[in-house]
Amino acid sequence: MKYLGTFLMLLYASFVGFAQTLIEVKSPDNRLKLNVSLSQKGEVTYGVHLKNTTIIKPSSLGFKLSKPAFTLNHFSLVSADTATHFDTWQPVWGEVKSITNHYKEVKLNLKANPSNVLVQVVFRVFNDGVGFRYEFPEQANFKHFIVADELTQFNLAGNNKTFWIPGDYDTNEYLYNTTKFSEIHALPASNKEKDIALKSVIGDNFVQTPLMMKTPEGIYVNIHEAALVNYPVMHLQADRQNFKLLSHLTPDAVGNKAYLQTPAKTPWRTIIISDKATDILASKTILNLNEPSKIENTSWIKPQKFIGMWWEMHVGKATWEKASGKHGANTGNVKKYIDFAADNGFDGVLVEGWNEGWEDWFGNWKEDVFDFVTPYSDYNLDELLAYSKQRGVKIIMHHETSGSAINYERRIDKAYQFLNEKGINTVKTGYVGRIIPRGEHHDSQWMVNHYNRVADKAVEYKIMLEAHESSRPTGLHRTYPNWLANEAARGNEFNNAPTLGLVPEHETILPFTRLMGGPMDYTPGFFRMHLNQFIPERKTRVRTTLAKQLAMYVTMYSPLQMVGDLPENLKVHPDALQFIKDVPVDWDDTKILEAEPGDYITTARKQKGKDNWFVGGVTDENARKTKINFDFLDKGANYQAIIYRDADNADWEKNPEVYTIEKVTINSNSTLTINLAKGGGFAISLFKL
Amino acid sequence: MKYLGTFLMLLYASFVGFAQTLIEVKSPDNRLKLNVSLSQKGEVTYGVHLKNTTIIKPSSLGFKLSKPAFTLNHFSLVSADTATHFDTWQPVWGEVKSITNHYKEVKLNLKANPSNVLVQVVFRVFNDGVGFRYEFPEQANFKHFIVADELTQFNLAGNNKTFWIPGDYDTNEYLYNTTKFSEIHALPASNKEKDIALKSVIGDNFVQTPLMMKTPEGIYVNIHEAALVNYPVMHLQADRQNFKLLSHLTPDAVGNKAYLQTPAKTPWRTIIISDKATDILASKTILNLNEPSKIENTSWIKPQKFIGMWWEMHVGKATWEKASGKHGANTGNVKKYIDFAADNGFDGVLVEGWNEGWEDWFGNWKEDVFDFVTPYSDYNLDELLAYSKQRGVKIIMHHETSGSAINYERRIDKAYQFLNEKGINTVKTGYVGRIIPRGEHHDSQWMVNHYNRVADKAVEYKIMLEAHESSRPTGLHRTYPNWLANEAARGNEFNNAPTLGLVPEHETILPFTRLMGGPMDYTPGFFRMHLNQFIPERKTRVRTTLAKQLAMYVTMYSPLQMVGDLPENLKVHPDALQFIKDVPVDWDDTKILEAEPGDYITTARKQKGKDNWFVGGVTDENARKTKINFDFLDKGANYQAIIYRDADNADWEKNPEVYTIEKVTINSNSTLTINLAKGGGFAISLFKL
Repeated sequence: MKYLGTFLMLLYASFVGFAQTLIEVKSPDNRLKLNVSLSQKGEVTYGVHLKNTTIIKPSSLGFKLSKPAFTLNHFSLVSADTATHFDTWQPVWGEVKSITNHYKEVKLNLKANPSNVLVQVVFRVFNDGVGFRYEFPEQANFKHFIVADELTQFNLAGNNKTFWIPGDYDTNEYLYNTTKFSEIHALPASNKEKDIALKSVIGDNFVQTPLMMKTPEGIYVNIHEAALVNYPVMHLQADRQNFKLLSHLTPDAVGNKAYLQTPAKTPWRTIIISDKATDILASKTILNLNEPSKIENTSWIKPQKFIGMWWEMHVGKATWEKASGKHGANTGNVKKYIDFAADNGFDGVLVEGWNEGWEDWFGNWKEDVFDFVTPYSDYNLDELLAYSKQRGVKIIMHHETSGSAINYERRIDKAYQFLNEKGINTVKTGYVGRIIPRGEHHDSQWMVNHYNRVADKAVEYKIMLEAHESSRPTGLHRTYPNWLANEAARGNEFNNAPTLGLVPEHETILPFTRLMGGPMDYTPGFFRMHLNQFIPERKTRVRTTLAKQLAMYVTMYSPLQMVGDLPENLKVHPDALQFIKDVPVDWDDTKILEAEPGDYITTARKQKGKDNWFVGGVTDENARKTKINFDFLDKGANYQAIIYRDADNADWEKNPEVYTIEKVTINSNSTLTINLAKGGGFAISLFKL
Repeated sequence: MKYLGTFLMLLYASFVGFAQTLIEVKSPDNRLKLNVSLSQKGEVTYGVHLKNTTIIKPSSLGFKLSKPAFTLNHFSLVSADTATHFDTWQPVWGEVKSITNHYKEVKLNLKANPSNVLVQVVFRVFNDGVGFRYEFPEQANFKHFIVADELTQFNLAGNNKTFWIPGDYDTNEYLYNTTKFSEIHALPASNKEKDIALKSVIGDNFVQTPLMMKTPEGIYVNIHEAALVNYPVMHLQADRQNFKLLSHLTPDAVGNKAYLQTPAKTPWRTIIISDKATDILASKTILNLNEPSKIENTSWIKPQKFIGMWWEMHVGKATWEKASGKHGANTGNVKKYIDFAADNGFDGVLVEGWNEGWEDWFGNWKEDVFDFVTPYSDYNLDELLAYSKQRGVKIIMHHETSGSAINYERRIDKAYQFLNEKGINTVKTGYVGRIIPRGEHHDSQWMVNHYNRVADKAVEYKIMLEAHESSRPTGLHRTYPNWLANEAARGNEFNNAPTLGLVPEHETILPFTRLMGGPMDYTPGFFRMHLNQFIPERKTRVRTTLAKQLAMYVTMYSPLQMVGDLPENLKVHPDALQFIKDVPVDWDDTKILEAEPGDYITTARKQKGKDNWFVGGVTDENARKTKINFDFLDKGANYQAIIYRDADNADWEKNPEVYTIEKVTINSNSTLTINLAKGGGFAISLFKL
């Protein structure tokens, strides 16, 4: 395709005075079109179109540096290279067995004026979206540099319907807002949030990615980033009148954005586009833009289902700290969890509050809270390890850092050596509170590097990892398949937050937003919806039906799935629990059967290495009837289907815990009509007969 | 002495409306007097007097907190306790064998109004000065707090002659300025400094401690701090019209000063006072205010004399980095240093530039420069360790952090394990450049904690430590006897700085300022004064005579003494080198024979465990004649004295390298008149016969 570059160079030379299309690249299926232009003044812009519809209008590119004090937004074109790439690869775990990576690429070699800094912009055009990044090659007079601002624009073509949360340097645990783009108002949205431990909201017109939108023409657009490495999290500044988005990088303690050294690459800026919402959920473009696995022998990595010494503390039965007198993580209590996990075939038991420090861990920006190796005196780790081994269950370690990442880095080698010695192979990290190094943010470059350093340490010690209160993922689980999941959004636990809590549509939005970057430890599996079990006056409650809690094991993909509720609550519904026991956490195939952000999602997945399928469907606050076509099943085969659905009188608000279980035989010609209650859902196990 | 408190409480009650002396405490010898007053409004002030002369006029005390937002400067007196203390203790190494710790103490228990925060102020009155600190006892409603400002005043009684350097959060490598207090101007003083790698000057009226002054009445006053732990470095803001000093703490990345948790203590604020300059140099008050040794078995700690693969790089013979092609720290070259050290009985060879990273280590705020365990390929560490062991010499490790303290903390366990494996027991750290965590300063609380954390690690791994470019010491070498020395001031190396360099008076000021807090690795021992040996056009030069370089081994106390010059230069003067070979680095006794800051110092010290004495004398830019009275020698004994003095035609500027060596027999009745050249000095070895 080299001719293309040459051809368009000529075009440029002959139309001085106008911004000319320099390069036009179509997706492999010719539906998506990227065009890149260079104005007479040297501004480089790109635009994206789906068939004849403009999705991204000409949008400029560039940087403002603070050292050297260069603005890199006027360029001369040195050369342009194009290429086509096709491969398939097998994820260590995932939603599908094999992933196709097919794109056309353009690499612009630019020289900035007047600084002469060489900048490359690489675009990759996939069938379902575009990714682009900046690269700074090694060059004699430009080695170290500090980014003051990235000047990437996303100029939308219209006043899109937008699913957004406020731009915030320290938290992504907001409830989603659904408004027209012109009606984004992050400050009131942030102000109503009283239950988030730490907020650093940027301004009224700043939002976070993944940002999900739907154009007036009904086209779905998702903006995010891929492969966030050695760079801060990108937030987006919205020009609400002109429907423009401008990249806004998270600053560090002194206001700088990124410290880079050539050769350097930014993360990929991703725009996933389709006229079908289901394509957005099925997209593998963000994964494809990440680097392959760093880990050669991945035999020690295993998707897991687990329960946790965790919800007890949230609902007021127990505490993390020992001094209260109702310490949850005591030996006897944890044994009950081990027994429950073993009895139900779960892989692990997460134990929070196991270690000294919880008496004074939060709210005081304290640097040295936990040492990660000292259990409370009533927690006999060695006894529990022996017991869990006997029962075939693993204990999952909890490393709450209280935001003091620096303390964690100081102690991580000893902490992971301790895990290796004890035979513990999975750790949940947490970053509740203001970050130390002080002045850094959860989303700043230093912390992004921290999360990645922790992932590298986990690789070194063969530890599987999930991080809570971290920056949101960007597909790095391809590179670090030991990094199973993150929280990094408003989880199911927020049902217990006293002010706003959750809303039934939440789980119909998350897969279009947060989950675009990677799996979430959403902690589904609540069977008791009123959370006043231990504190009668408590008003908090879960905003789903019980059947919807089951559905989420399918609709919310994660290789690390918690069973959120207390054993005593789960035991109340052994028939419903059966679905959670059956549902796998790793898949050979996935079909997004139907989806509309904010309204509903129905997903079917095929069990890893088996012929069984599992279907989950969720709805928002509206009841709905859906018809499932089972044509994804093997032709000619019969399946024993167990259907877990909302009872006819179910309603998330009035009657959430009633459900119906039916067994039927299903084949690929079958269809099934299912009613979802308000805030409801359903789950189906399909065992091949 | 309990009656005192009671008596004065009554006094206070009966004179409402005036600031009344609440407590008056005299030093054990009754010469110094501290009085503490409480005004009707609740302001607590202290004053200090030497006999009938006021040194510190009523000066207020207190704090401004940012969280909780309290100002603690109005108090009610809850109670006052007084006590007397006397003990003697033996330092692991030092200037004297035994140290007397004798003081009277007052502890005020105060309650701040209106916050009800309990604050204690503890004063200790020694014969040669006063120390006081704030303590925050455990209390129910005040646990974590953030210091916005410490409001400690030092109100001077007059326009003192002041030896000062500009207040600066990141460097103490300034040349000293000598002016009246009213004429302090830190900005022009800072602006003329072009050779300091990183400056963060605070403002025109800010100076650093130790601050040396001489009152119009001729009384010497030194203000500093002792036991700087978990607190930022205190700078001083000068009210030049009213002769007042106000504490100014070094801020962190977000502008806070200190994060504390009760029970908490500030460092001691020290005011050393005497009508004799020699008493200032002999004071052990700062040491006495530090905690005893943390280390029980100190047998592995040894004062050391060493040479360095170091000055080669400064004078342009070699480079730290390997890529230049003239890498100093190559195996063959280091062997020559080992041979020279062994041949002359020195303990160690410091090797800088031994490890990978020097090609890109400075100036770019780069976080991950050195790993502290990877030698350059031309530096065969194992071969050199074997060779040095065979020759009875130790290799001293160099850990330059390039200011990235965070990277050092991350790697310190592996780095010190590496030292243990290799049998290396001494490390020189360095902090050149802007600090990472970014936004922190060399003098901020986090970095103070860092230096102390490194000292703790060094204790853990039995490593002796010296830090360069750190905050200046505060007597912590009592607590950490493995922490042999610091740089933390303008060292002898500044003779090679192209702009200002050094001045001959420098070494007559340092003992009164920087050395008040602890030993300095000043790197004396330059024998070649013109530094154009390898770069002919180089104009830099040493600003002393050769004899003065010898004298500094006595006048500038350190248990870690470098022999600064290159072996080939030292070999030119084997007779002068003999003094450096003979002079010990540990002492049983010290007599400051005469001293005047900025003019001259003559010191005699008695060798540890031996009956030999060594005398050193230095002068400033003026020649001087001094008469030494040897009455400190054992009565009736004879000593073989070797006198190393400036030749009659010596002059630091015109003829610095000429000296005379004489041998005479000396006893306790002897006197000796010695002429010191301009910028000159002398050294005397006295071997008991």
